[in-house]
Amino acid sequence: MIASEVRALFAVASRPEIVSLAGGMPAVDALPMEAVAATVAEVVTRRGAQALQYGSAQGDPDLRARICDVMALEGITDAHPDSVVVTAGSQQALDLLTRVFVDPGDVVLTEGPTYVTAINTFAAYQARIVHVPMDDDGLVPDGLAQMLRRLAAEGARVKLLYTVPTFQNPGGITLTAQRRAEVVEICRRAGVLVVEDNPYGLLSFTGEPGRAIRADAPDDVVYLGSFSKTLAPGMRVGWALAPPAVTARLVLAAESAILSQSMFTQLSVEHYLATQPWAEQLKGLRELYRERRDAMLDALAASMPVGARWTRPDGGFFVWLTLPGGVDTKAMLPRAIAARVAYVPGVGFYADGSGRSSMRLSYCYPPAERVRDGVERLAQVITAELRLRDTFRS
Amino acid sequence: MIASEVRALFAVASRPEIVSLAGGMPAVDALPMEAVAATVAEVVTRRGAQALQYGSAQGDPDLRARICDVMALEGITDAHPDSVVVTAGSQQALDLLTRVFVDPGDVVLTEGPTYVTAINTFAAYQARIVHVPMDDDGLVPDGLAQMLRRLAAEGARVKLLYTVPTFQNPGGITLTAQRRAEVVEICRRAGVLVVEDNPYGLLSFTGEPGRAIRADAPDDVVYLGSFSKTLAPGMRVGWALAPPAVTARLVLAAESAILSQSMFTQLSVEHYLATQPWAEQLKGLRELYRERRDAMLDALAASMPVGARWTRPDGGFFVWLTLPGGVDTKAMLPRAIAARVAYVPGVGFYADGSGRSSMRLSYCYPPAERVRDGVERLAQVITAELRLRDTFRS
Repeated sequence: MIASEVRALFAVASRPEIVSLAGGMPAVDALPMEAVAATVAEVVTRRGAQALQYGSAQGDPDLRARICDVMALEGITDAHPDSVVVTAGSQQALDLLTRVFVDPGDVVLTEGPTYVTAINTFAAYQARIVHVPMDDDGLVPDGLAQMLRRLAAEGARVKLLYTVPTFQNPGGITLTAQRRAEVVEICRRAGVLVVEDNPYGLLSFTGEPGRAIRADAPDDVVYLGSFSKTLAPGMRVGWALAPPAVTARLVLAAESAILSQSMFTQLSVEHYLATQPWAEQLKGLRELYRERRDAMLDALAASMPVGARWTRPDGGFFVWLTLPGGVDTKAMLPRAIAARVAYVPGVGFYADGSGRSSMRLSYCYPPAERVRDGVERLAQVITAELRLRDTFRS
Repeated sequence: MIASEVRALFAVASRPEIVSLAGGMPAVDALPMEAVAATVAEVVTRRGAQALQYGSAQGDPDLRARICDVMALEGITDAHPDSVVVTAGSQQALDLLTRVFVDPGDVVLTEGPTYVTAINTFAAYQARIVHVPMDDDGLVPDGLAQMLRRLAAEGARVKLLYTVPTFQNPGGITLTAQRRAEVVEICRRAGVLVVEDNPYGLLSFTGEPGRAIRADAPDDVVYLGSFSKTLAPGMRVGWALAPPAVTARLVLAAESAILSQSMFTQLSVEHYLATQPWAEQLKGLRELYRERRDAMLDALAASMPVGARWTRPDGGFFVWLTLPGGVDTKAMLPRAIAARVAYVPGVGFYADGSGRSSMRLSYCYPPAERVRDGVERLAQVITAELRLRDTFRS
């Protein structure tokens, strides 16, 4: 079980002496706690009868309107609140979407590597997960087209292309603007719905956020968003923006799954966005994560042995590191933890056993100094590993 | 669509001039809002870094321990927090349980009538829903045994018996203690897991709460609980208590469905139970609902035409009313709404089209005076309906 391995790892990695470059936890301690406390208390005193009651399966209309404003930051200017479904994090949106669209044996295309819990969700519905080739510019359109031809020849039913196109988890990679258009066009022709999962898009380190795939393809894309990385994952407020027919099915699925979302967390997020300087706080978060990203990239450049390769993210939480010499990162993990640093082995981010020499490094949670220490410890472990291999080989 | 009919109905019934005996919304305005506001603010100021972060898929350990204390009020004294999975209301527990156990075509047994959203959930997983006979003492054991023999002869795979044994939704009926033991024994022999859904058990009008089925059958029952009726549905905090092997599968399913529950709402409920006089407040709720129940039963006795029959609940939210003369309650609903009273037609609580002459009346939300007015308006509509039928017949 991939998920249980990750859990076991996180249990060990949470010990204080270990620098965890493993988790994807946002830096919630950067939030102004007094302001959050005042917000949630106000929601109860002012709108308690509504906040503590059942809500609709689609989610609170005021929050859905505000979500449309948030999506406009990434170029989605035509979204209507009626097309938004509020979900328990974007994970639930992904689960409901899979429930609605995927029958056992259906193909779901994903990047390789891809988000680990998406793999679990697709697998739970007995989808066949097929990875599309990617490079430092994201999904490779020719590779996608070729893959679709091969699958069509097999008679496979391809339902979804699942992509995290911006500051990808786990690669940190961003799909270029030109490729976005190509990917949508290829999928449209093949009758494949694009699922754009975008939890990190607003955490850009190079100025304004980029343009979402959905901004230019309203009929072909289901867009998944989340406040988990831009506000707080403990609220569990995410959403899907979908074409109307899909929205209606998602609402029915949500009702059957949990009846309604928490009105309390929905109104809390809505009230926070309405009354707090959230845009300013986002800038602060971008600064914070950029500093940590810089610390990681600097330390990697200074300490990694020859032959190691890594991605250089322009936003988000993650760097993808690939080692030379056939090192098995899963087998190496206990030695890393003994050296007081943790990461997630790359194999968990593939459905097909790839990624054995890679790992995901996250810089989102530890302060910059700890990130640097962690990478240096890791470099020592890797160097020792490579030396040992050389010895055995010679 | 049963669910969409109910939604459309609720939209109309929410107009202020209409007495809604339709909804199952608890009386959250009875909560001490200042105390709730203080609680949720304290959770953020004292434990913000935890409350606003991701949690585990199984739920917060402190809350799970407190849930075990709550279940002890109904005789479940052996529950361990490790066997509890916190869910987004007990609805999510039901959804995950169905996902884990039910394959398309499998049989799920339920009371008839039964909880409408449970029907939707089972149908979403393509279960075959079969109603077990019930009377004023709940499920009829002989009828259950006979049903199981018939299904076994057919070669059907019966997976679950879903029951709301205490103050049932929609019947208001409670399964007697003797029958509880018989039902468990029959299901155990047939290899059928009993799902005891118990959101209303603590809302007894006749003294102390009764004994849960689970209290005497730890290996045969998955118990579903909720704070939606005893605290606030807007928190979306429910749970499942299950045998260890089932718990592990529910946790994996929860992770795939929503990653983790809201830590904020979990810690809010936990802190509220730890610091507020919840047991006293529960007594207040029981008084409040008993007064409304009395108003409904008195008004039914005073105004219903001869031949109408109704249940007499000892707790919970609902009365089940059955009309004479073949009245179709769904066809009659627009006339009731024109007379400014709403109810839920009985047919929605069956998977097989039964219940056409019945309706669910809820007394949980409107004040007693409004409940009385609503029943009187309803009696006039029914009386007119019966007179019309007599005229046509003669």
